Amino acid sequence: MPIEIKHPVPSDIDIAHAAEKLPITEIAKSVGLLDDELELYGKYKAKVKLDVLERLKDAPNGKYIDVTAITPTPLGEGKTVTTIGVSQGLHYIGEKVFTCIRQPSQGPTFGIKGGAAGGGYSQVVPMEDFNLHLTGDIHAVGAAHNLLAAAIENRMAKESRWSTAFLAKALCPDGEYTDSMRKRLDKLGIESEKPADLSEDDKERMFRLNIDPSSIQWRRVVDVSDAALRDITVGKGGNGLPRETGYDITVASEIMAALGMCSSLADLRERMGRIIIGTNKTGGKRQVDRPVMPITAEDLNVSGAMTVLLKDAIKPNMMQTLPGSPAFVHTGPFANIAQGNSSIMADKIALKLVGEDGYVVTESGFGADCGMEKFMNLKSRVSGLVPNCVVMVATIRALKMHGGGPKVVAGKPLDKAYTNENLELLEAGLPNLLQHIENATKFGVPVVVAINRFTTDTDAEVALVRERAKETGAYDAVASEVWTYGGKGGADLARAVVKAIEEEENNFKFLYDDDMSIKEKIETVAREIYRADGVDYSPAAEAKIKQFTKMGLSHLPLCMAKTHLSFSSDASLKGAPRGFRMPITDVRASVGAGFIFPLLGTMKTMPGLPTRPVYTDIDIDVETGEVVGLS
Amino acid sequence: MPIEIKHPVPSDIDIAHAAEKLPITEIAKSVGLLDDELELYGKYKAKVKLDVLERLKDAPNGKYIDVTAITPTPLGEGKTVTTIGVSQGLHYIGEKVFTCIRQPSQGPTFGIKGGAAGGGYSQVVPMEDFNLHLTGDIHAVGAAHNLLAAAIENRMAKESRWSTAFLAKALCPDGEYTDSMRKRLDKLGIESEKPADLSEDDKERMFRLNIDPSSIQWRRVVDVSDAALRDITVGKGGNGLPRETGYDITVASEIMAALGMCSSLADLRERMGRIIIGTNKTGGKRQVDRPVMPITAEDLNVSGAMTVLLKDAIKPNMMQTLPGSPAFVHTGPFANIAQGNSSIMADKIALKLVGEDGYVVTESGFGADCGMEKFMNLKSRVSGLVPNCVVMVATIRALKMHGGGPKVVAGKPLDKAYTNENLELLEAGLPNLLQHIENATKFGVPVVVAINRFTTDTDAEVALVRERAKETGAYDAVASEVWTYGGKGGADLARAVVKAIEEEENNFKFLYDDDMSIKEKIETVAREIYRADGVDYSPAAEAKIKQFTKMGLSHLPLCMAKTHLSFSSDASLKGAPRGFRMPITDVRASVGAGFIFPLLGTMKTMPGLPTRPVYTDIDIDVETGEVVGLS
Repeated sequence: MPIEIKHPVPSDIDIAHAAEKLPITEIAKSVGLLDDELELYGKYKAKVKLDVLERLKDAPNGKYIDVTAITPTPLGEGKTVTTIGVSQGLHYIGEKVFTCIRQPSQGPTFGIKGGAAGGGYSQVVPMEDFNLHLTGDIHAVGAAHNLLAAAIENRMAKESRWSTAFLAKALCPDGEYTDSMRKRLDKLGIESEKPADLSEDDKERMFRLNIDPSSIQWRRVVDVSDAALRDITVGKGGNGLPRETGYDITVASEIMAALGMCSSLADLRERMGRIIIGTNKTGGKRQVDRPVMPITAEDLNVSGAMTVLLKDAIKPNMMQTLPGSPAFVHTGPFANIAQGNSSIMADKIALKLVGEDGYVVTESGFGADCGMEKFMNLKSRVSGLVPNCVVMVATIRALKMHGGGPKVVAGKPLDKAYTNENLELLEAGLPNLLQHIENATKFGVPVVVAINRFTTDTDAEVALVRERAKETGAYDAVASEVWTYGGKGGADLARAVVKAIEEEENNFKFLYDDDMSIKEKIETVAREIYRADGVDYSPAAEAKIKQFTKMGLSHLPLCMAKTHLSFSSDASLKGAPRGFRMPITDVRASVGAGFIFPLLGTMKTMPGLPTRPVYTDIDIDVETGEVVGLS
Repeated sequence: MPIEIKHPVPSDIDIAHAAEKLPITEIAKSVGLLDDELELYGKYKAKVKLDVLERLKDAPNGKYIDVTAITPTPLGEGKTVTTIGVSQGLHYIGEKVFTCIRQPSQGPTFGIKGGAAGGGYSQVVPMEDFNLHLTGDIHAVGAAHNLLAAAIENRMAKESRWSTAFLAKALCPDGEYTDSMRKRLDKLGIESEKPADLSEDDKERMFRLNIDPSSIQWRRVVDVSDAALRDITVGKGGNGLPRETGYDITVASEIMAALGMCSSLADLRERMGRIIIGTNKTGGKRQVDRPVMPITAEDLNVSGAMTVLLKDAIKPNMMQTLPGSPAFVHTGPFANIAQGNSSIMADKIALKLVGEDGYVVTESGFGADCGMEKFMNLKSRVSGLVPNCVVMVATIRALKMHGGGPKVVAGKPLDKAYTNENLELLEAGLPNLLQHIENATKFGVPVVVAINRFTTDTDAEVALVRERAKETGAYDAVASEVWTYGGKGGADLARAVVKAIEEEENNFKFLYDDDMSIKEKIETVAREIYRADGVDYSPAAEAKIKQFTKMGLSHLPLCMAKTHLSFSSDASLKGAPRGFRMPITDVRASVGAGFIFPLLGTMKTMPGLPTRPVYTDIDIDVETGEVVGLS
């Protein structure tokens, strides 16, 4: 639909409300979806059934574009705006296009950040639905996650109370194993048709999980920014075993990461079973020494129910951009301890739906050293999909900050260094962009720089960025004004992307192989992407690497958990730092999601609230039912 | 649709999967809903917009039937099965009918109980959707509830850290009040246009809520049975102020009760603002004595955002019964600390949709001393709707238990006293039913007893129940075999209900008036319904009654929080006990929901899990995507 562009640009929610949205059934028809492949959620949202992949399995894929960014200021550099904007630009120049982005957490929406559906004339609508509940996927992830948490706690409490004989009888009241129990028998190497067959020792191994409380890495989750839940004591007042644990925000759940990584319902079911919650105690109740083994969700007989809770969440959610091009909003894994990319399922379906001549635009969380590196080495490795182009978002503001400009703080006015022309400061900050460009080209994929242009940026500043970017290997660098002008403001960028894909060679490759050791993988990324001189492992990290290698997990790809505010692990080191070493403080495994995640510093997995949270301004207009104050 | 009835009766999920469901759009059309009044959630669920009430505001209401039950055994007596069954019966004999029931919590679904969509040939379908997430309403309630919890914690942490001047500046960065802040000014009796107007003392009263941590009654919620969360410590590790609190299951949230009670979006917005989370400290930071005042969600400036999170949850969810009659599944408030009845919104819409000649069948949780009493004195008082008939569900099994039969325990085989004819035991247990009948007639509404008949019940046993019930004032008592035969098995019951409404006078009245004191209301219910000799108040209860009366809350109706397993507060006293006193251990106020709830004993608001939770059997068939093992 044509959008009437106003100046000055109205608030995000006013633009969103003024948009004449198409019924989602029309969007679905325009991309060739069949009626039966759609599950409507109101008039403007629909889930797409996974069956469509089977119907289109022989269709060619469209072109696959990853939008990423330079190292950002705390304000963000407009990556989502550009992702939606370049899509609207492709739509504007007449190309078939599908946008695939993450669903945001409600924590920051009501807390420090506000909505995340793009902004200005570059948005996915309806923006309230995008930012609130959507179709309930995040809540479903929370329900599955917390069910597993309750299962752990309950099992420990019951094992502490009952004899092994009682446990065996209670768990198999009809004297038969469930399918899930048979998987544990296999894991333990016990051959048994019925519980009655088991020796006393095998009965204990089978029915007494003997979870070591200090080993439990499964916390609880909630989709609210609630700092008071970071560290809590549960099991008080005689309700189970008192224990220190805590909450993360739901999007930090391993289940969210697994949902984003899975390729089918069957694959998701397997991933749920593989989730490791901790390990067993080495001394059994019968004073027999036990080897340390991972305890999985399958061992707790709860991974089937967890998958049941996710049976709708696995289906991508279709929405639309302001001019009516289709968008998938699906999964929202964290960008440090998880892959920070939207789902593989959505990308796969979108690539089939747009067909050979079409484009799928997706976004990677954080800067390119985090999000793009994982898009390439992790997400594309698992999906088997080949990216055709990288769009690298940069702002003159952020580059000046990297060049040594004054601190940029949310809520404070910008220094004039950022609002007046300053080519020297810009030049000093360009190495950050150039390193990200070099990094992208290491994956063999053409790079187009999108200069997310503010009104204060001068032509000379834009020209300087363009010149240096092209010298360093970018196919082009183009100013983008999608926030102000929507699709029209992204048309030049879209044309550059189309040409880059047509004209440049694609030699896509990973930076490391599956069969490299965990340390070799870590060191490859540290050297090639961050440009660290070396890696320092803490004793805890060393121990975990040994343990995971022994457990046969070293073939897994990495998910580097690091700050997005610097190439290094020190957020204050801006630009393109050299002469530093990368500390690995710990190493963890998300086996359900399918990766090892080394911690490069401390990661916050539960945000807090500011003194004046965003919710202070949010209310409902009780006459119209419309949301006010959300931006 | 005609359903093929099989014998023996297959599992609930097999019956549900075999049913040929109508698209929900057809069900909607059959009750005269317009396309624009419907928001589809897949093919078989839809939300109905509240606009329909405005369109039909002059249409006459249908007949309003409350299904309730005698004091149950721990197995339950088939109240939901009968609610759906009498609806299917009315449909079978050609009447227009709408069923309104609660959405179940996922905690018991995966924990101790399994599904709650009815059973046998009396079900609401699709049963998986009914039992899992539905359209996300319970999750929305949880999100709103936990946002308020985070707001409390955050405000206390920030107030402990910052000066009043800083708080004022942070909360009003542009020097203006929000609408929500103006409500607090009104409450405090402060006249001020801008924060700059305020005296130092008023600034402190306005911006420093000074919450007394020991007064906080707002806990957190999750829709999982997780006993380890009943008592927890939050705010550890420097994240806020360490504090003892805990979790309830989401359906026990006051927000769920308010959602069930509200009559419009505007009303819900007001109710969210009125929620009391605790009181202030009496000593201010400036050493000034402060009066104790309730702290509300409005004071925390978060009730607008909470309502935004509930903007879709307020709309009733339409589904269908097995033969295709319409059903609303909406809200699921607890039956002890809350009203235990489905939403007023759903009943109101359904009564308009069926019209003058039609019937709306709804269900009250627990036995009639709990659920029906609240349906009459609380829900109907707030809604202004007039019930036309009470259906009192009884089983021969439960009556024998009340007569002194052996203990009935879930999972254990029934004693032969229950499976062989035993008129003496039955006669001894009948007073329980008869007291419930007498109680129902005190509200001036005709009563039909539904004998939920098992195959082992003899004709003589059924005849005895019928005779005594009619003697005591029931219009009729009819055997119901809806579990085995669906609508056909409920046809006689349906005919009796139609005749009772046609032939009996309706003199509906409440048992107490708004302007009676809190104690008078408590004592009226204790005397008239429970038949207690008197009421004993704990010192805590006495103090709360004084406090609430002083706060101007004594006009609120009551929500008695008592066990459903006896008329008394002692679950082991079966039958129709006499010569007992009713202890009131505490009294609490749910001002957002709009009631005072006296505690008659200790209530569990977070269920636990058994040694073998129901989830052990639940899995997904990865080929068909169907849920298995849910019953």
